[in-house]
Amino acid sequence: MSLVLSSKTKTNDGRMSMQLPGQLNPSPRLLLGPGPSNVHPRVLASMSLPLLGHLDPQFLQIMNETQELLRATFRTSNRLTFPVSGTGSAGMETCVVNLIEPGDRMVVCVNGVFGQRMTDVARRAGAAVTATERPWGEVFELEPIREVLAKVRPKVLGIIHAETSTGAWQPLERLGQLCREFDTLFLVDTVTSLSGVPVETDKWGIDAIYSGTQKCLSCPPGLSPVSFSPRAVEVINKRKTSVQSWYLDMAMVQRYWNEERFYHHTAPISMIYALREALCIVHEEGLETRWARHSCNHQDLKAGLAKLGFKYAAAEGHQLPTLNAVRIPPGIDDAAVRRRLLADFGIEIGGGLGDFKGKAWRIGLMGYNSRPDVVLVLLAALQECLNRT
Amino acid sequence: MSLVLSSKTKTNDGRMSMQLPGQLNPSPRLLLGPGPSNVHPRVLASMSLPLLGHLDPQFLQIMNETQELLRATFRTSNRLTFPVSGTGSAGMETCVVNLIEPGDRMVVCVNGVFGQRMTDVARRAGAAVTATERPWGEVFELEPIREVLAKVRPKVLGIIHAETSTGAWQPLERLGQLCREFDTLFLVDTVTSLSGVPVETDKWGIDAIYSGTQKCLSCPPGLSPVSFSPRAVEVINKRKTSVQSWYLDMAMVQRYWNEERFYHHTAPISMIYALREALCIVHEEGLETRWARHSCNHQDLKAGLAKLGFKYAAAEGHQLPTLNAVRIPPGIDDAAVRRRLLADFGIEIGGGLGDFKGKAWRIGLMGYNSRPDVVLVLLAALQECLNRT
Repeated sequence: MSLVLSSKTKTNDGRMSMQLPGQLNPSPRLLLGPGPSNVHPRVLASMSLPLLGHLDPQFLQIMNETQELLRATFRTSNRLTFPVSGTGSAGMETCVVNLIEPGDRMVVCVNGVFGQRMTDVARRAGAAVTATERPWGEVFELEPIREVLAKVRPKVLGIIHAETSTGAWQPLERLGQLCREFDTLFLVDTVTSLSGVPVETDKWGIDAIYSGTQKCLSCPPGLSPVSFSPRAVEVINKRKTSVQSWYLDMAMVQRYWNEERFYHHTAPISMIYALREALCIVHEEGLETRWARHSCNHQDLKAGLAKLGFKYAAAEGHQLPTLNAVRIPPGIDDAAVRRRLLADFGIEIGGGLGDFKGKAWRIGLMGYNSRPDVVLVLLAALQECLNRT
Repeated sequence: MSLVLSSKTKTNDGRMSMQLPGQLNPSPRLLLGPGPSNVHPRVLASMSLPLLGHLDPQFLQIMNETQELLRATFRTSNRLTFPVSGTGSAGMETCVVNLIEPGDRMVVCVNGVFGQRMTDVARRAGAAVTATERPWGEVFELEPIREVLAKVRPKVLGIIHAETSTGAWQPLERLGQLCREFDTLFLVDTVTSLSGVPVETDKWGIDAIYSGTQKCLSCPPGLSPVSFSPRAVEVINKRKTSVQSWYLDMAMVQRYWNEERFYHHTAPISMIYALREALCIVHEEGLETRWARHSCNHQDLKAGLAKLGFKYAAAEGHQLPTLNAVRIPPGIDDAAVRRRLLADFGIEIGGGLGDFKGKAWRIGLMGYNSRPDVVLVLLAALQECLNRT
């Protein structure tokens, strides 16, 4: 890795001339933080394929295939299913700004950073937001949500399936039915869950769902898969106001992703190659096998972490296999251990976020990285670093 | 290229099983449309490098280097200079939604699709928009703009440097000074000009500028370099309302790109590798040399197209070297010729957009593709296709 800082110098004729930085040469990293996780080698290779035009018949075919693969991954038959040209947070914003019109009521379940973020995004879209809260690390039960829906009668209920700041795994099975009782749209964040734990968009009655590519899909960050139910599409089509974001306006973007192929913005070609390859890998393995693999490696990691004295931040029974958030025991220097893990062994784990800053570590075992050898090397390296610091 | 459509079948136990699409195998393409253009081989290779974490010290260094390279490319010392995590249109939206608060007046110069788009983006941000228009293919003179600024006294003037729908090349040299007379911020779209023709952010008094990676930078689509002057940053810092987009809010995003390194959203790592490599290539060649190369190949193409009977859509003296928009002579079948160019020779050129649909072709000679051999093969292939159809 070149650490030469670029700098400008004046040449004789007064033009700027630059000292250019050295060759890109990233050190090997085992990315076990909250994401990005390591990218599957086949996906990395697909990024180097030469470009097609964004309206080339071959590329349109790749778009169709990617959508079909995404539908299978989300377990949905939703027509409006495609990757937004931005990272996971752009997916969150896409769902919110398309469903919400100024003044609409929205309930957001907040038990960590990403629930908080959703309230912020919704307020900026003009929603009257009711945040219903649980302590960090806990999840939401059905009845309290029923009460808030009965009281607020919101247009949209938003919830985080896998709260990346706490490692809490929210049950969703019965919420879709509940939302229907109150004529509420059901919006779910699956950034850190999709393809790592079961996600059943249609069976669970989810109306709008988004994810990210850089977690369990083992693809680089840069796209956000989204899907909208026919019920959500109907609401979008009946809007009285324009979506505040031109870039994320489904009414326009869907005309490029459907048969019209109407130009909206230039699709990020290479990232879509990568996503298609990543999704092929997911379905070669099979979703159920993949979920079982994530669960199995999580159990092994959990047993190993327990021996080292670590306790999970999330409640028992609600701990994500994909994101293991553990409390840092007293006497351990958070930053020093993480620095050493990175410097001595090239292993990245995540620090705490928000309320958990300095209090928790977040250890991702996602997609390609959910492997027995990864669990072993992490536990060994962690023990070594704890001994040394 | 596999054209096998994926399809779902039920297995014995009722689970969905998929017929997966074949291996990604895009055909060779010479991308001479309005973008994406072909990616430099070194940039394609950089996309396959393994990921670093988005807070890894090595990645932070890469971010610094990318920013420094971008400043040199925009010819600016603006501190707030970085790539937005979205395509060029996300850059347009970023500039508009950060500068505009609801009710602010904005003047947009409209002489093609991208000026129209800017009015749409601005209205969605709550701006009181005055569109000042010129016929498609023409550019704006100074005096009429002065008149509209004097009359409207807008907060922001928006203009397209290189109108990708018409190939018109807008002079900007004196507009920054004019904007200052009216205390107006000067916003410029350089999506199809940056590194292909001179762009002088500081010298021309530009306050907010954006571009795309997939044009003259010869990088895949997916990022939008932006830069804000200190004057623009001051306006952003004094906002009374939140930026309507969480994802594009400079107040937050800049805290990740400056020394704070405060987490906002996960940066698209691989795309930033690609952009850094592309910018290194730009500065190895040197901006002036690159501009001269674009000009030279454009002249050769223009001479060749004239022999084939094509006239430019943009006025003489205002024709972009990077995007050659020509009127389709009577009797030529637009779609048939373009289909044949693609099928027989793997060459993509762009059809007309908006008012020019069916009436113009758009031929890009951008970055890596601005080469004498490319000009020769395009002219030969075009002649062949015109003879055959």
